Amino acid sequence: MKKKVCIVVASRANYGRIKSVMRAVQDHPDLELQLIVSASALLYRFGNVIDIIKQDGFEVTSRIYSIVEGENLTTMAKSVGLGIMELTTQFENLQPDIVLTVADRFETMATAIAAAYMNIRVAHTQGGELTGSIDESVRHSITKLSHLHFVSTDLARERVLRMGENEDYVFNTGCPSIDAIAELDLTLPKDFFLSHGGAGHEIDMSKPYLVVLQHPVTTEFGSGLDQINQTLAAVAGTGMQAVWLWPNVDAGSDDVSKGLRMYRERNRDAPIRFFRNFAVEDYARVINNAACLVGNSSSGIRESAYLGVPTVNVGSRQHARERAANVTDVPYSATAIKDAIIKQVAHGRYEADHLYGDGKSGVRIAKLLAEVEAPIQKTLAY
Amino acid sequence: MKKKVCIVVASRANYGRIKSVMRAVQDHPDLELQLIVSASALLYRFGNVIDIIKQDGFEVTSRIYSIVEGENLTTMAKSVGLGIMELTTQFENLQPDIVLTVADRFETMATAIAAAYMNIRVAHTQGGELTGSIDESVRHSITKLSHLHFVSTDLARERVLRMGENEDYVFNTGCPSIDAIAELDLTLPKDFFLSHGGAGHEIDMSKPYLVVLQHPVTTEFGSGLDQINQTLAAVAGTGMQAVWLWPNVDAGSDDVSKGLRMYRERNRDAPIRFFRNFAVEDYARVINNAACLVGNSSSGIRESAYLGVPTVNVGSRQHARERAANVTDVPYSATAIKDAIIKQVAHGRYEADHLYGDGKSGVRIAKLLAEVEAPIQKTLAY
Amino acid sequence: MKKKVCIVVASRANYGRIKSVMRAVQDHPDLELQLIVSASALLYRFGNVIDIIKQDGFEVTSRIYSIVEGENLTTMAKSVGLGIMELTTQFENLQPDIVLTVADRFETMATAIAAAYMNIRVAHTQGGELTGSIDESVRHSITKLSHLHFVSTDLARERVLRMGENEDYVFNTGCPSIDAIAELDLTLPKDFFLSHGGAGHEIDMSKPYLVVLQHPVTTEFGSGLDQINQTLAAVAGTGMQAVWLWPNVDAGSDDVSKGLRMYRERNRDAPIRFFRNFAVEDYARVINNAACLVGNSSSGIRESAYLGVPTVNVGSRQHARERAANVTDVPYSATAIKDAIIKQVAHGRYEADHLYGDGKSGVRIAKLLAEVEAPIQKTLAY
Amino acid sequence: MKKKVCIVVASRANYGRIKSVMRAVQDHPDLELQLIVSASALLYRFGNVIDIIKQDGFEVTSRIYSIVEGENLTTMAKSVGLGIMELTTQFENLQPDIVLTVADRFETMATAIAAAYMNIRVAHTQGGELTGSIDESVRHSITKLSHLHFVSTDLARERVLRMGENEDYVFNTGCPSIDAIAELDLTLPKDFFLSHGGAGHEIDMSKPYLVVLQHPVTTEFGSGLDQINQTLAAVAGTGMQAVWLWPNVDAGSDDVSKGLRMYRERNRDAPIRFFRNFAVEDYARVINNAACLVGNSSSGIRESAYLGVPTVNVGSRQHARERAANVTDVPYSATAIKDAIIKQVAHGRYEADHLYGDGKSGVRIAKLLAEVEAPIQKTLAY
Repeated sequence: MKKKVCIVVASRANYGRIKSVMRAVQDHPDLELQLIVSASALLYRFGNVIDIIKQDGFEVTSRIYSIVEGENLTTMAKSVGLGIMELTTQFENLQPDIVLTVADRFETMATAIAAAYMNIRVAHTQGGELTGSIDESVRHSITKLSHLHFVSTDLARERVLRMGENEDYVFNTGCPSIDAIAELDLTLPKDFFLSHGGAGHEIDMSKPYLVVLQHPVTTEFGSGLDQINQTLAAVAGTGMQAVWLWPNVDAGSDDVSKGLRMYRERNRDAPIRFFRNFAVEDYARVINNAACLVGNSSSGIRESAYLGVPTVNVGSRQHARERAANVTDVPYSATAIKDAIIKQVAHGRYEADHLYGDGKSGVRIAKLLAEVEAPIQKTLAY
Repeated sequence: MKKKVCIVVASRANYGRIKSVMRAVQDHPDLELQLIVSASALLYRFGNVIDIIKQDGFEVTSRIYSIVEGENLTTMAKSVGLGIMELTTQFENLQPDIVLTVADRFETMATAIAAAYMNIRVAHTQGGELTGSIDESVRHSITKLSHLHFVSTDLARERVLRMGENEDYVFNTGCPSIDAIAELDLTLPKDFFLSHGGAGHEIDMSKPYLVVLQHPVTTEFGSGLDQINQTLAAVAGTGMQAVWLWPNVDAGSDDVSKGLRMYRERNRDAPIRFFRNFAVEDYARVINNAACLVGNSSSGIRESAYLGVPTVNVGSRQHARERAANVTDVPYSATAIKDAIIKQVAHGRYEADHLYGDGKSGVRIAKLLAEVEAPIQKTLAY
Repeated sequence: MKKKVCIVVASRANYGRIKSVMRAVQDHPDLELQLIVSASALLYRFGNVIDIIKQDGFEVTSRIYSIVEGENLTTMAKSVGLGIMELTTQFENLQPDIVLTVADRFETMATAIAAAYMNIRVAHTQGGELTGSIDESVRHSITKLSHLHFVSTDLARERVLRMGENEDYVFNTGCPSIDAIAELDLTLPKDFFLSHGGAGHEIDMSKPYLVVLQHPVTTEFGSGLDQINQTLAAVAGTGMQAVWLWPNVDAGSDDVSKGLRMYRERNRDAPIRFFRNFAVEDYARVINNAACLVGNSSSGIRESAYLGVPTVNVGSRQHARERAANVTDVPYSATAIKDAIIKQVAHGRYEADHLYGDGKSGVRIAKLLAEVEAPIQKTLAY
Repeated sequence: MKKKVCIVVASRANYGRIKSVMRAVQDHPDLELQLIVSASALLYRFGNVIDIIKQDGFEVTSRIYSIVEGENLTTMAKSVGLGIMELTTQFENLQPDIVLTVADRFETMATAIAAAYMNIRVAHTQGGELTGSIDESVRHSITKLSHLHFVSTDLARERVLRMGENEDYVFNTGCPSIDAIAELDLTLPKDFFLSHGGAGHEIDMSKPYLVVLQHPVTTEFGSGLDQINQTLAAVAGTGMQAVWLWPNVDAGSDDVSKGLRMYRERNRDAPIRFFRNFAVEDYARVINNAACLVGNSSSGIRESAYLGVPTVNVGSRQHARERAANVTDVPYSATAIKDAIIKQVAHGRYEADHLYGDGKSGVRIAKLLAEVEAPIQKTLAY
């Protein structure tokens, strides 16, 4: 009998970070994939990720609406509760052997709690990383509930062990998000931006462009509007054209969205094109061909290390992540951001760095899911 | 302006472990107590703890029903979700400065998550202890979400630090559950059992009696009936009279309750009296005057250390807790339990041990709540 | 393609009233049965109805825990909310064409609301009856949300039409609960009570016995204990032996249960045997062979009409239901109840009356579900 | 002791329809107002109605986030469930004597169910009206749960009675939404639109303007985009300038919003200004000074009758509402809508009609709330 592995995909970011594992689980002879799509992965505002998942050939086992509307701290917390209530019913009916939860967002927490309390083994990716927001606390909190740890770097493994996890069940597999790009033809078709919707100015692919993705920082709730305005001013200051992505649903994303909308109203002619979302593969192509990545997305630290794309990382959100040579850090200051962009564009491409993975994490994780039997009862290793 | 400290009392056990802190917060000139009573603390089946709380002179700010019925792993998980959804609305409306969450049960987890996501400081008691069940994972998971740690022993403090918490915010205050007994006249009135309800045989206070309290073990779901039957046989085998308490609501408590009910039906004349619950103070008196405490309640490890009452600790539930000389450990075996009871009764009272507290934890914690300003943003200390 | 009919079984009573429809839907060539088992039908305290459903050969599509514990008005209301939240996810994933909801309890309301808002046709059984409790308001409220009405009597049909429903979609099909008994061998095996568990005194089948089933009345919350005590005294006064069933989960059932438990403690030798639940068929046999049915169960009005069993109906719960000649109504008075029981036992069996159905409702309803296409958009018929 | 009247304001529309009652309850010597603000009344997307409520001088007792994000039928149903769960806790803690629920939206249903099950009297406004969508079924369903009915017209009263309600508790008070405009200085300041935000073309107040407000129709889910496009084309065809309001949150509002956004992107110069929301008073001024009201808002039928403003009512949403002479009905057809607008603008202002109220409903309702004692137990009047 196959081991049933249940994966909960709750957001655009989740999907990019777990897709290669989903594929490898589906292809493994001893594993059966149960796929729950929930939270912002179902919402139009966040690009209907479920449609991309289906186009990629995955069969969705069940769909769960679990976001309480409001995009503030209260509704984020409430969404964790709603997610747990919904997922318990799914797990009750699907009876998975292992539940795999991705990274650190609030839906991830809901998944881990529901499974852990139901005596189902929890496997967790991306544990042991430091990022300096509520997501970091949540990530470590999930580590303490998880039975199998698939971390992305040696340092992350070291930290998970220091937190008291059993070394037999902590594996540096590299991050599955690297897989998505490793196997990819990264050429960006000439008409790509023309044929991918978006709103605002057109991107001229014969010239260099920036990619900007800046999320609100949960623990700096209320500052999102100022922060995005600094970045907007900086990008405007460079005179370069930019591909700008809308932020994740999160406490504060309303502020960021508002800043972007206001800017658009007032700067109809700015050389910026706004997009809601790209397919995982397209996103990799877009950043691979970018002159520089700007903002606070983890992709500027992780995927960009592998690709060697220059990154200007803004503010505290990625604060403590390990980084390769391609990253320049700057505060929320229009001047600082602008100057850094100019320098990074001048530097050009860096050498590839395997810090976050070599592109084979999905298969490695599926194999471990099939072969390792972690004990359900945990205790501190010290 | 006073600092608003919100305490969520979710069960009988919670209350015993936090009452002295509630009192000290109420009495502190710089603190305001917000008191939420929820979960099993509202239920008749678990002794209407809310009535005791009111009789003790506390004003209840709000009441929340948050247990999904079923007493299995699925409903326990679902109750975490329901608790979070309810508590976020309370926190939204009460706007506490600090939320204090007690120990390690599922309602505790709900409290910690709701507060942490809402950027409210979380204070946690009893972190860093090892107990060998899902509660242990949950306890450590809460530690990773908490900003202030009030632990009960030096070893517990050491463990919390090793998990990466900042040493400036981890305090060995001793356990508030010890306070409840330290200030108490521990004499048990002659007619105590006669005047406190219960069902079954009467207790003759001129003779020694056992106190038995055995909870289901979440990670051994399905074994509850066998386990309770071993203890029932052991107690019967000693020929001694026993005060028997019904277990907490928890996955598996139906099994334990069923075992107790079946035994009662078949052994109408057994010298056992069953009680749902005692006031915290009465419980201390009852165990202080017992010949031996039997089962797997933490009170057999913690409070009993301070009191010097002999304990026979059954099975895995308290597996890794630090213990004083008064505890004998036995497996789920009628014979082993019986033999250990006989030996412990013969030994009699042990010397008091301050391992878990000196009786002044409540005041100490209130002072720290008033004076320490923990940063809201956490990161691993290594 | 088959029409998908989703039936939600939420309690013991639900099941008895819909089982023949479930069978007929399963057997109909143009219909597919989707079966959700939820609420008290999953709980041990209410006889694990789900096990009976499986033994009867039905495949359960999904299971939902949806009772918030507390058994008071607040938790009953909250359970409606929880039921809706859970059922919407099920309907989202199962995509039924019609949802069939049974009678009038709180889970029934949850089913009707979830389906109506999701633009799924709602079929409702037992509309248009008067019963004098919150259940009556809820029943009519569900009628206003329903697209297809399968009522049990001509008078009920008349009332549903007067409330403004379209006469093309209101059918007097008779009540499916009658089907269960119409096809049954109603002989009660000699050793029936011996082999069906229960607690208390044994039933001597060579002598007449009473069957008692008394539920709390929601709108008389707080009086449950007094009410059950009157009935207990009345039954004791007759000196007859009695088969006593535990009440449904409902606001106030704790009171009734407490009354029963207290009576048992004090009257160990009373000739009463307590049962949690019988299979639908067994229940029919038990009442068919009873000397008299006592309490406020609708089975004393409906099924008993068909069977001709004498009924003593206590209090307001069945206040306005149409009744056949077999029913005597009495207030909550030990004397009145006792006198009525004695008279009814003396009278003996009545003639069968088809007031509530002729035993063929299930097949009739399945045929209508397959053939009638009710418009999704409703409006008052006047 | 004052009677506690709890009013739940869940949306912009709710507030306009109940504000004068809130004021009158607040001012009544025998009544105490408990005010819960919930659902879309808390959301930025719907104009932060809570801020307006506070500016109007009301004290908010508690705030509840209760919308599950998704804006489709599933999440609307789920939001009813969430609303019920949240409101029961509020009612448990606030212990109101009467709960007043407004009209017919999904939050209204949640309020009615929570209160009815908790044995709290439910008062309902706007019962007995016919509108031809799921809201109509819900409105009648709420009528069957309500103890006091404050209807807006004689015909509505007649219908509520025919549904079986007791005539002693059904009052034609007129609609409180008329009050808001009756007492108002309806002059629109010259710089009104300039000073009230919005996006798009500026409104020239020296020329006539249209007001357009078109909501999705729940039972026509999926057609929202086509429908809004017809109206957009019609308005463009008239060449007139227009004040356009964003629709309510509802299943399908995403479609309507999308249509509006697409139109804006493509027609930057169209003489349309888009607004999220106006204060109740401002809205009345805006429509009172409009040349014609277009769309399917009930304000085109109700408030406009009192004001005598010409209305072009589009499609099925207001299908069966009683209407005065000022309304012209048209299908979802650009041509039909355009022609009707041109005729109505040519006709100009109609005479005032008191069909929906005389402007004194709030005081009338408060007096009835204070003086009438409806029985908690209901039954069909026939």
